[in-house]
Amino acid sequence: MRLLRDKVIQEGIVLPSGVLKVDSFLNHQMDPVLMREVGREFSRRFEGEGITKVLTIESSGIAPGIMTALELGVPLIFARKQKSLTLTEDIYVEQVYSFTKRVTSDITVSRKFIAPGERVLIVDDFLANGEAAFGLARIVEQAGASVAGIGIVIEKAFQPGGSRLQEAGYRVDSLVRIASLADGQIVFADES
Amino acid sequence: MRLLRDKVIQEGIVLPSGVLKVDSFLNHQMDPVLMREVGREFSRRFEGEGITKVLTIESSGIAPGIMTALELGVPLIFARKQKSLTLTEDIYVEQVYSFTKRVTSDITVSRKFIAPGERVLIVDDFLANGEAAFGLARIVEQAGASVAGIGIVIEKAFQPGGSRLQEAGYRVDSLVRIASLADGQIVFADES
Repeated sequence: MRLLRDKVIQEGIVLPSGVLKVDSFLNHQMDPVLMREVGREFSRRFEGEGITKVLTIESSGIAPGIMTALELGVPLIFARKQKSLTLTEDIYVEQVYSFTKRVTSDITVSRKFIAPGERVLIVDDFLANGEAAFGLARIVEQAGASVAGIGIVIEKAFQPGGSRLQEAGYRVDSLVRIASLADGQIVFADES
Repeated sequence: MRLLRDKVIQEGIVLPSGVLKVDSFLNHQMDPVLMREVGREFSRRFEGEGITKVLTIESSGIAPGIMTALELGVPLIFARKQKSLTLTEDIYVEQVYSFTKRVTSDITVSRKFIAPGERVLIVDDFLANGEAAFGLARIVEQAGASVAGIGIVIEKAFQPGGSRLQEAGYRVDSLVRIASLADGQIVFADES
C-alpha cells in the first residue's frame, strides 16, 4: 500500500534497539485519513469473504479496526488486555506474551459478541511474533466462529509471526512488509 | 443526539452497581456507523474553533476520537495509561484516578505531538467525575496549548465531572446526558 509505505519512509524512526517507531501516524498520534485508507484497503482485500465481525486488540488496533469495520458494514470488537470491572463474567480468555513489554497478559472478549458460525476478520497494527494474532484467533475458534483472515498494517517480515500464522492455515494480508531494520535502515519486502 | 440516545435506550444495561453498560456499541463491541456519526456531530459542534488536534485516552476514546479527527481534518493523539517501552522520554505525565477501577494511573503524551499555541479538542467516551478530562486538559496546558473544548459521548450528569469542568472554564459538549440510573432506569437530562 503505497500511501502507508511512503509514510513509513517519511516518518518511521528505527531505534537503536531495532524497534520501528511509527508513533507520529499509527500508534500514539494517528493520521485519520491514512486510517480510513487502511480500512478501505482491508475491505477491498477481504470483500467476498462473508465477514460478520472485525476483531482487534486495544489500543493501537482500534483505529484501523473501526475504519475497516465501517467499510465492511460490520461491528468492531476490541479485545481487552485485562479484565475490567464491568466485564467479569461470560468472557473468553487467552494468554498472550508480549515480547516488547516482556509480560504475559490475559486478553478477553465477551462471549455474547461472537456467535458460532461467524466469519471474523482479525486486524492489528503490527505483526512480529504473532502472539497477539494467535490469541485472537484462539478466541474466535473458542466461540465456534472462523477466522476469515488476518489484516496487518505493518508486518516485520524478519520475525516469524507471518510464517507461523500461514503455516497454521490463516490467510495473512499485510499492507506493508518490512524485510529488515538492520543498521537503522528500513528495507521493505515485496508487498502482496 | 437522537441516534445515540436511541442506542442507549435499546442496548444500554444498568447493572445493580449503578454502572451503565454500553459494551455492545461503545466500549467493547463498537458500532462504526454510530462512531462516524459521533465524529460528524463533534465536528459540527466545534467547527470554527480552529482546532488543530484531537486528544483522547485509550482505549474507548479512540474510535470516537479518530472519527472526529477525520471529520475535522486534524490528527488524533491518544494518551496512554502507562509508559510503554517505546515512549520512555520526552513525555508529559499526569496522574488520573479511576473511580471505576479504583487505581491511579499515569497518563502520558509525547511532547513532540502538542506544540505551544495549538487548539486541542478533548474527546472521551464517558464523563463521570471528570478525572480523565482534567488530566488530559492539564497535559494540553503543560504543552502551552489551549483546550478548545471537551466532547463527551455519554455524560453521567448526576456525577460532578461536567459541573467541575465547566466551573474550571472549559466548554463541555455531551452528546447524551444521563440524569439518573436509579432503580435500574435510564433517565435522560435535557440535551444541549
